[in-house]
Amino acid sequence: MARVLYDLAGADPALRFSPYCWRTKLALAHKGLEVETVPWRFTDRDAIAFSGQGRVPVLVDGERTVSDSWAIALYVEEAYPDRPSLFGAPAAAAVTRFVNAWADTVLQAAMIRLIVSDIANIVHEKDRAYFRQSREQRFGMPLEEVTAGREDRLKGFRDMLLPLRHTLSAQPFLSGDAPAYADYIVLGSFQWARCVSAFELLAPDDVVAAWRERMFDLFDGLARRAPCAA
Amino acid sequence: MARVLYDLAGADPALRFSPYCWRTKLALAHKGLEVETVPWRFTDRDAIAFSGQGRVPVLVDGERTVSDSWAIALYVEEAYPDRPSLFGAPAAAAVTRFVNAWADTVLQAAMIRLIVSDIANIVHEKDRAYFRQSREQRFGMPLEEVTAGREDRLKGFRDMLLPLRHTLSAQPFLSGDAPAYADYIVLGSFQWARCVSAFELLAPDDVVAAWRERMFDLFDGLARRAPCAA
Repeated sequence: MARVLYDLAGADPALRFSPYCWRTKLALAHKGLEVETVPWRFTDRDAIAFSGQGRVPVLVDGERTVSDSWAIALYVEEAYPDRPSLFGAPAAAAVTRFVNAWADTVLQAAMIRLIVSDIANIVHEKDRAYFRQSREQRFGMPLEEVTAGREDRLKGFRDMLLPLRHTLSAQPFLSGDAPAYADYIVLGSFQWARCVSAFELLAPDDVVAAWRERMFDLFDGLARRAPCAA
Repeated sequence: MARVLYDLAGADPALRFSPYCWRTKLALAHKGLEVETVPWRFTDRDAIAFSGQGRVPVLVDGERTVSDSWAIALYVEEAYPDRPSLFGAPAAAAVTRFVNAWADTVLQAAMIRLIVSDIANIVHEKDRAYFRQSREQRFGMPLEEVTAGREDRLKGFRDMLLPLRHTLSAQPFLSGDAPAYADYIVLGSFQWARCVSAFELLAPDDVVAAWRERMFDLFDGLARRAPCAA
């Protein structure tokens, strides 16, 4: 049975922009596991109802269905122990959960305030009303107001990246000498931004930008080759 | 030759409040390595000049002198491979560096704005002018103004802990099922605050507070038994 990943897509089915789905695609590539991706939109609830919840990524691996990017990472690590370790060691998986929580609650929470109006432009027509209404309710204002003046907020965003910058000044990857899941988590966030928006988040001389370039190159340019709105 | 740690002390020589020295003391306890601590004050530059720099912790382990808490952690891990691993695995050390950078640049940067005026009250008399002048220069205002209205800023501080809270909602320690260096880093910050100030940073029903209690209990209550100004 083929391995299938339900993967958030825009109006252009080739535009795959979910940060969580990117974590999973990079994790599968690290493990050397091929996957067929199925474009999915926010309003395609019925298509993944079999997973018992309403969000992607959803991985169907033979008989197993796993949703949630973190659960998928733990699953592939355990199910394919002979493939390269996604964390390097079980002890590293526990600490990587902190990076996952930081990306979810700090990094992406800051990023979305810089790019959310651009996302509204690339989602599928059938998702437009849902996306705009749900996000405008969350922010309490029109999406264009959320991102207004974003140039002036870039410095604050870049200051927030200091823990990344310190770490990547001392070692080439968050996971050490070679990339692993901590790196895929954070690249997923930057790939999300890149796929939906031409607004540049990083200064060119930032070590985080240099790391991002190295990450874009991995797996024959898996992230770099992906079609992006930018 | 005895193992010696130069450890920041207050006016009361028993009051040891450096977050970085606490990282090291907890790391040595994890490794089961006994250490004689020497009280040191900010202005005792000459006493540690032999280390080639001016900050504590400075560990003298037989012939070796190591300064900087992160470098000390890596040193004891490598020098005592037969003792319990401080990181669990080499791969975990790399990701733990991100936690270290987050504690340095985010957690403690926020904490100091809530407690710095209390620190001024517990430092040794010979450190008072140095401490107040250097910190008031950094903040650009009197220390009492830095901490003024801190009750109103507690919510923002607690919100900033969200990555910790998410992680500790999913597992008992940052390092997984058992504490390791990622936990000692963050406990060092909370122990710093506890040693210098009665101002409570955490809500009692916070999972971070429950974790902190578990951490205070480790090594026969090493952190809990320490004399504190509070």
